[in-house]
Amino acid sequence: MCYGKNIAEHDVESKTVTITEATKTENPNYLFVTIETKGVEPGEVILDFTKNKKIVFSQPYELKQRREGSADRKGFDSSDVMYLIMPDRFANGNPSNDSHKDTVEKADRSKPGGRHGGDIQGIIDHLDYLNELGATAIWSTPLLEDNEPIYSYHTYAQSDLYKIDPRYGTNDDYKRLATEMHKLDMKLIMDYVTNHWGSKHWMIKDLPTKDWIHQWPEGFRRSNYRMTTQFDINASKIDAKGCMDGWFDTTMPDMNQSNPLLLQYITQNAIWWIEYADLDGFRVDTYSYNDKEGIAKWTKAIMDEYPNFNIVGEVWMHDQAQMAYWQKDSKIGAIDNFNSHLPSVMDFTLHDAIMVMFHEEGNSWDKGMIRAYENFTNDFLYPDINNILLFAGNHDTNRINEIYQSDISKYKMAMSLIFTTRGIPQIYYGDEIGMLGNRDKKGDGDIRRDFPGGWPDDKRSAFVSEGEKQKTAGRTKDEEAFHAFTKKVLNWRKNSEAIHKGKLLQYIPFDNVYVYFRYTEKERVMVIINNNSEDQKLDIKRFKEGLENHKVGKDIITDNTIDLTENIEIPSRTSMILTLQ
Amino acid sequence: MCYGKNIAEHDVESKTVTITEATKTENPNYLFVTIETKGVEPGEVILDFTKNKKIVFSQPYELKQRREGSADRKGFDSSDVMYLIMPDRFANGNPSNDSHKDTVEKADRSKPGGRHGGDIQGIIDHLDYLNELGATAIWSTPLLEDNEPIYSYHTYAQSDLYKIDPRYGTNDDYKRLATEMHKLDMKLIMDYVTNHWGSKHWMIKDLPTKDWIHQWPEGFRRSNYRMTTQFDINASKIDAKGCMDGWFDTTMPDMNQSNPLLLQYITQNAIWWIEYADLDGFRVDTYSYNDKEGIAKWTKAIMDEYPNFNIVGEVWMHDQAQMAYWQKDSKIGAIDNFNSHLPSVMDFTLHDAIMVMFHEEGNSWDKGMIRAYENFTNDFLYPDINNILLFAGNHDTNRINEIYQSDISKYKMAMSLIFTTRGIPQIYYGDEIGMLGNRDKKGDGDIRRDFPGGWPDDKRSAFVSEGEKQKTAGRTKDEEAFHAFTKKVLNWRKNSEAIHKGKLLQYIPFDNVYVYFRYTEKERVMVIINNNSEDQKLDIKRFKEGLENHKVGKDIITDNTIDLTENIEIPSRTSMILTLQ
Repeated sequence: MCYGKNIAEHDVESKTVTITEATKTENPNYLFVTIETKGVEPGEVILDFTKNKKIVFSQPYELKQRREGSADRKGFDSSDVMYLIMPDRFANGNPSNDSHKDTVEKADRSKPGGRHGGDIQGIIDHLDYLNELGATAIWSTPLLEDNEPIYSYHTYAQSDLYKIDPRYGTNDDYKRLATEMHKLDMKLIMDYVTNHWGSKHWMIKDLPTKDWIHQWPEGFRRSNYRMTTQFDINASKIDAKGCMDGWFDTTMPDMNQSNPLLLQYITQNAIWWIEYADLDGFRVDTYSYNDKEGIAKWTKAIMDEYPNFNIVGEVWMHDQAQMAYWQKDSKIGAIDNFNSHLPSVMDFTLHDAIMVMFHEEGNSWDKGMIRAYENFTNDFLYPDINNILLFAGNHDTNRINEIYQSDISKYKMAMSLIFTTRGIPQIYYGDEIGMLGNRDKKGDGDIRRDFPGGWPDDKRSAFVSEGEKQKTAGRTKDEEAFHAFTKKVLNWRKNSEAIHKGKLLQYIPFDNVYVYFRYTEKERVMVIINNNSEDQKLDIKRFKEGLENHKVGKDIITDNTIDLTENIEIPSRTSMILTLQ
Repeated sequence: MCYGKNIAEHDVESKTVTITEATKTENPNYLFVTIETKGVEPGEVILDFTKNKKIVFSQPYELKQRREGSADRKGFDSSDVMYLIMPDRFANGNPSNDSHKDTVEKADRSKPGGRHGGDIQGIIDHLDYLNELGATAIWSTPLLEDNEPIYSYHTYAQSDLYKIDPRYGTNDDYKRLATEMHKLDMKLIMDYVTNHWGSKHWMIKDLPTKDWIHQWPEGFRRSNYRMTTQFDINASKIDAKGCMDGWFDTTMPDMNQSNPLLLQYITQNAIWWIEYADLDGFRVDTYSYNDKEGIAKWTKAIMDEYPNFNIVGEVWMHDQAQMAYWQKDSKIGAIDNFNSHLPSVMDFTLHDAIMVMFHEEGNSWDKGMIRAYENFTNDFLYPDINNILLFAGNHDTNRINEIYQSDISKYKMAMSLIFTTRGIPQIYYGDEIGMLGNRDKKGDGDIRRDFPGGWPDDKRSAFVSEGEKQKTAGRTKDEEAFHAFTKKVLNWRKNSEAIHKGKLLQYIPFDNVYVYFRYTEKERVMVIINNNSEDQKLDIKRFKEGLENHKVGKDIITDNTIDLTENIEIPSRTSMILTLQ
């Protein structure tokens, strides 16, 4: 894409490369040039812009050398644990870039919706903390420039798709983050936003084509957010268009993925970032709001280029058939002649269950642990059930420890489930120290509080335990309890083949006790979650299929040894994770 | 199937027909004889039972003439309205058979769970009432003999599969019911129970094979009722078996449909009833509790014999993918390599919505009319969305007018929806006069009260309006209001092509007002349901796609004419059904 005042008045030629197409649009400031790269050696390519066959000016462009094996890069998978960070709120590694001359909004840590100064250096500084915790992958919310005058900290209204926001650092810093992570065998996942750009994006201000974005007669029209219109055979056209083409928010013009030039732009940009920063995956924002044929093409193009890569889409629905619709090779999508080519989706129905089920302490036909059990009864709907993201919360939901009022027993039950069932666990920064936040009552800022210790002037640091040698005070006793549990289970999880890729075998919960097994030929794990307010005793005979002939289980949480030839006693509101010996 | 003391000690021969197989089981009292009927003329077939090649005794068997066109019989479809009757509670046409010497339980109308004396003659006596109301099909709960000593009135524990319970009448009476209904162009649907027989069935008392039923070491084991185990890829074997092979109730031994002799017996019995009584459809009880491969074979055998017949299965689930799984040629079933061959399922999720949504009167993201709208967004999951049974209640649920406390405005909204959206409406006897009943608080008997006027000594009859010339008092003013609405809409529905087979076009409900259209090339109907407690005004421009160029609508409920060139005002808690002119 070449941009310049009336650039389209020129023709384009090259002595260094074959130009196969030069596309002009109604905006003379753009010229879309297609070059043939096959057989071209890395190095400088020069485009000559001509008038009447005379060169008016020339523009060099670098075709970079691809790193060896780049196409074979392996994305995140169910052996990983993904740690979700909002970089503005995690750690401020470089206070000198909290505000920047090139971007409008300046730092103000006193505002819940302001910029607080967290940055890439802050993440790099705490990679050891995350590695020791047991996280193996980081999903950071967007880091590209967002030049909105307010609320730019969430950075979903991006104003330049090729540039890290200077308040987070530089493109080089982002690349360095990946390098440092790879040294620790950790994976970096970029939050990619295909559905909308920010209103301050320079191309939005000077649109290449009228249909580069979805425009409405009245200017702004908000999406109706009814993503079900994407497959509703009864949907009225006005509703279907209103979902897909409506804007996610006033500052977020809705991109038209059915425009081939736009589609090509975001496809190339995505591939560029994979190569540039050596990425291990994408999380795609508001996936199901996109033009569905367009986003499927985008997804396929990336996966064709990197067959072992992984992309998880935000498909925020409350019905498993609807979520399964969006996963690659879905038989449900096929009913609608649709294939998204999206390898991974998020398990929002499990999240729905987790948000309520630990409040439900007695026996019930459809409540408590039954909700988790029932979620897994529909696993057959998903074409690839291991490639599904599990979470107890993210940057858009009430915090898990707010929902359960800092009750660590409920945190442990929820996380035992997330960490050991099929799929890829994701934890939200700070959940591991019991951080609170109520979005419904106090807004987004409340679930995106600063991580204690991330700022140089913080009085204490939850990145370190109380006992460690340090300048500031460390985790509180309560924080330490949350942290120790999380660290223990995740570090055990790192080496459990049964959890990484084993089958799931589940039993109908009785009396609010859920029992399941994960197993391969080599390893077998039994998980028991007693969500009952009373202690329970389990009839061991019932679990014969899962136990095979194992007689002893080692509880990886307590290190206790459990006799599996006798009925198991499990205290109220407790989880056990037993490796069978 | 030949039965007699030690009958299996005999061989079987015939001079009148070719015997292809004679199967003996571990019970010498049974002999299963297969004869070749192809090319055999109707008439008497004689089986000779021999020992040492000498005839010990002979048994004649009649091969009946099939009525012409029998195989082409057309089952119920979406042009029908199904009226569900519990015959013991509807009308007592023959008081002389209220108790019968051949069956244990005697009539006692004072007991909610006792036999009240309703019968087939009672239904025949009121066919005109039903025809005038606008019902075009009757589903009666089972009528075959149920010789349990108590609670036999529901008749789901059948003790003889070839015999109408004498307290309901005779086999001939049942045949006469069909004949009388066919004269009125009405259809008769039998409630067929494949999953279990009654404990008093003579074959249960003398089992042909040990595995004729599912037996448990401890005698009785109740089903865990978790039908999801039928497709849960994670289910433990003990749970899957516990659902499918567990008994529905103590008096209901669970039949083993994977036993080919049992399967053949119930297949032949079903076909026998279709031929004998000239049936127009089956409703199959507890469909998804059956051995799923077995019930699929049973269903396919019947549908192969009668390609235009219809069978609706009770698939009581709360997830649309799970219900769609059970419909013939389901793409969701296919994920599990399963095809039930079942043409029709029940829309239980719509029922879930109807039970709560009219309590929800304000605007909401996910409540009120949104629940109905959302139900229809998943229509693509069903292979045949028009062949799905719609209901606001049945003999197992709280009564719709109990749920909404006799509020006729809510009844009208619910029924306007059921009667005009895609699918086959079913109403439960007495709902059309506002009958009450609370199963949760008062048990099954309360939702199965006697229809007023069904018994000779009833003081008044809700079968007649107050004004009609009659011996007893008629419907109360309130009953009349419910009845008049129902009758009006159903009689209009009888002739609406758009409702019978039109497409559905729906709009996202705003402010709790749901608008949809049904349309064919010839006819177009607009339905508006305002579930808001405030009057609403609709922006008519939004509905352009549905209105096409129509300018006037006739409200078939009020006979008012509505100007469709202006915004429509619709009073609170009101439904409008407009035929577009």
